[in-house]
Amino acid sequence: MDAKEASPAATDLKRPREEDEINGAAAAASMETDSPAPAANGDQTKEPACFSSVIPGWFSEMSPMWPGEAHSLKVEKILFQGKSDYQDVIVFQSASYGKVLVLDGVIQLTERDECAYQEMITHLPLCSIPNPKKVLVIGGGDGGVLREVARHASVEHIDMCEIDKMVVDVSKQFFPNVAIGYEDPRVNLVIGDGVAFLKNAAEGSYDAVIVDSSDPIGPAKELFEKPFFQSVARALRPGGVVCTQAESLWLHMDIIEDIVSNCREIFKGSVNYAWTSVPTYPSGVIGFMLCSTEGPDVDFKHPVNPIDESSSKSNGPLKFYNAEIHSAAFCLPSFAKKVIESKAN
Amino acid sequence: MDAKEASPAATDLKRPREEDEINGAAAAASMETDSPAPAANGDQTKEPACFSSVIPGWFSEMSPMWPGEAHSLKVEKILFQGKSDYQDVIVFQSASYGKVLVLDGVIQLTERDECAYQEMITHLPLCSIPNPKKVLVIGGGDGGVLREVARHASVEHIDMCEIDKMVVDVSKQFFPNVAIGYEDPRVNLVIGDGVAFLKNAAEGSYDAVIVDSSDPIGPAKELFEKPFFQSVARALRPGGVVCTQAESLWLHMDIIEDIVSNCREIFKGSVNYAWTSVPTYPSGVIGFMLCSTEGPDVDFKHPVNPIDESSSKSNGPLKFYNAEIHSAAFCLPSFAKKVIESKAN
Repeated sequence: MDAKEASPAATDLKRPREEDEINGAAAAASMETDSPAPAANGDQTKEPACFSSVIPGWFSEMSPMWPGEAHSLKVEKILFQGKSDYQDVIVFQSASYGKVLVLDGVIQLTERDECAYQEMITHLPLCSIPNPKKVLVIGGGDGGVLREVARHASVEHIDMCEIDKMVVDVSKQFFPNVAIGYEDPRVNLVIGDGVAFLKNAAEGSYDAVIVDSSDPIGPAKELFEKPFFQSVARALRPGGVVCTQAESLWLHMDIIEDIVSNCREIFKGSVNYAWTSVPTYPSGVIGFMLCSTEGPDVDFKHPVNPIDESSSKSNGPLKFYNAEIHSAAFCLPSFAKKVIESKAN
Repeated sequence: MDAKEASPAATDLKRPREEDEINGAAAAASMETDSPAPAANGDQTKEPACFSSVIPGWFSEMSPMWPGEAHSLKVEKILFQGKSDYQDVIVFQSASYGKVLVLDGVIQLTERDECAYQEMITHLPLCSIPNPKKVLVIGGGDGGVLREVARHASVEHIDMCEIDKMVVDVSKQFFPNVAIGYEDPRVNLVIGDGVAFLKNAAEGSYDAVIVDSSDPIGPAKELFEKPFFQSVARALRPGGVVCTQAESLWLHMDIIEDIVSNCREIFKGSVNYAWTSVPTYPSGVIGFMLCSTEGPDVDFKHPVNPIDESSSKSNGPLKFYNAEIHSAAFCLPSFAKKVIESKAN
């Protein structure tokens, strides 16, 4: 049996057809809500195109990245809508997932389930190496990854490079429990292009790089490409680690295959894929590429650096991450394991 | 910190309000599709109430079990709609998940991701005991669990009790790769009430019972209640195992708490909760209660009975399950672990 046959109902796994699906998403009807006119602090017209529509009073997430399906949340109130230099930004109060941040029509976080993503993308890499001291975060403008990095007492300095200042500002205004990460004195925030930032970073200067990006069809496109991974490898110390947002096993095996192939070429330490449950992400899961550079061995599946709960009281207790779920995240379904292992070895 | 505080954004976890949410779901507009009139082999009117609506041409899943959110699939063609003595039954061809089976407006399986559910609910119990010989399946009318049980060469007899013959017939007609389970000569299908079947079952007669039920608001309601679990325990041999569908950690912690409490009282062996990813189920995950009766110890987290791939070639290779993902399924997020462990001990 070849890899394709191993995928669940492989014949049904359609690739986005950009010519019609993108238009379809853009043409989706506008959203209506029971709330009054949108907040005036955005510079958008009343019904931005990024509001892919739905049932009246609901937000619906449609994208060529996941054709033929949509996840919808009931809207109680639109709190913000604006257009930055890079993307459409929306915040709304949902009926059952708390406040929701949407970029270019795609849910980035909800108050109810953001813990899973933020804790896993951060602690999978940082708990896999002893005493991380210098950390770089690319993207992650909401501040949630910073909140999690700050739990590590060993960390001395956190550089953060986010391209879109509006995301930072909106998070500080509407998601104080996420943006609390910015209050840590170890954080150095740079508003700018992560690709350029990494090119100029001193060689071998970071213990860990965390790439908290949106999908590869928008401002984050370059963060999924080979030159970017090369810059990451260059900026890491020997035996340093990177963790990047790496899409869904159920939806994007072709993207994941490419990322794994690239990483296997570039990272001479270990190359691993992990995944976790995030209900409001497409297919309900999100994956991570975890790689290390040549140097001291990193065994990502067996964390060596437990979080000292007592040192992170100010950011509240961990809600999702623990050492068991860390190891479990690397156990993949057979259909994915077969493909990823064939690329990784 | 108490358990409630540990839950992600606990204040946002609203309980269904039956008085308005059920009405809301029932009142949802009917679905329109591009396809011609529905197949004539159902006895429903053109637009059954269980078709909670959406965007024209899409099926949308709304329920008081998950208020404020909906998952939608693009419909290519309605293949069947009927009303059995127990529930509304619909089959449609989706644009990206293959054929889809819907009962009372809730997705039961799609061709694309059914492997995850069927393989996990079956092999988590059967791979946890040596040489299962006699197995009882309650529910699971689609036949997928039978397909998976049949992979175990040690199994000599499979009783199956499904309440709704229409589900069996529809699966045989539209989901041959799922209903293939019925072709195994070890299967004894009984159309009837699982609760009554278990009451009449010989004491201590089964090595394993698998309860593949729908949600506890419909014909499956009793399958979540204490008398049912008592019947299951009675029907199992000492050290026998049960695996029941047990909802979502993200949505139904209150239901899960009750199930765990009941099971801890009734099953004197081990009591465990496991979960897995199923994209088309609400919140993208589904859980399982795994319990054993007093007798030989069962350590569910460490499977002792690997599947002999060579003995199950006729049903195709496993797509999802493997020994690693078996153990990983028992690793829970901190918010759930805290609640479940407090009830289980």
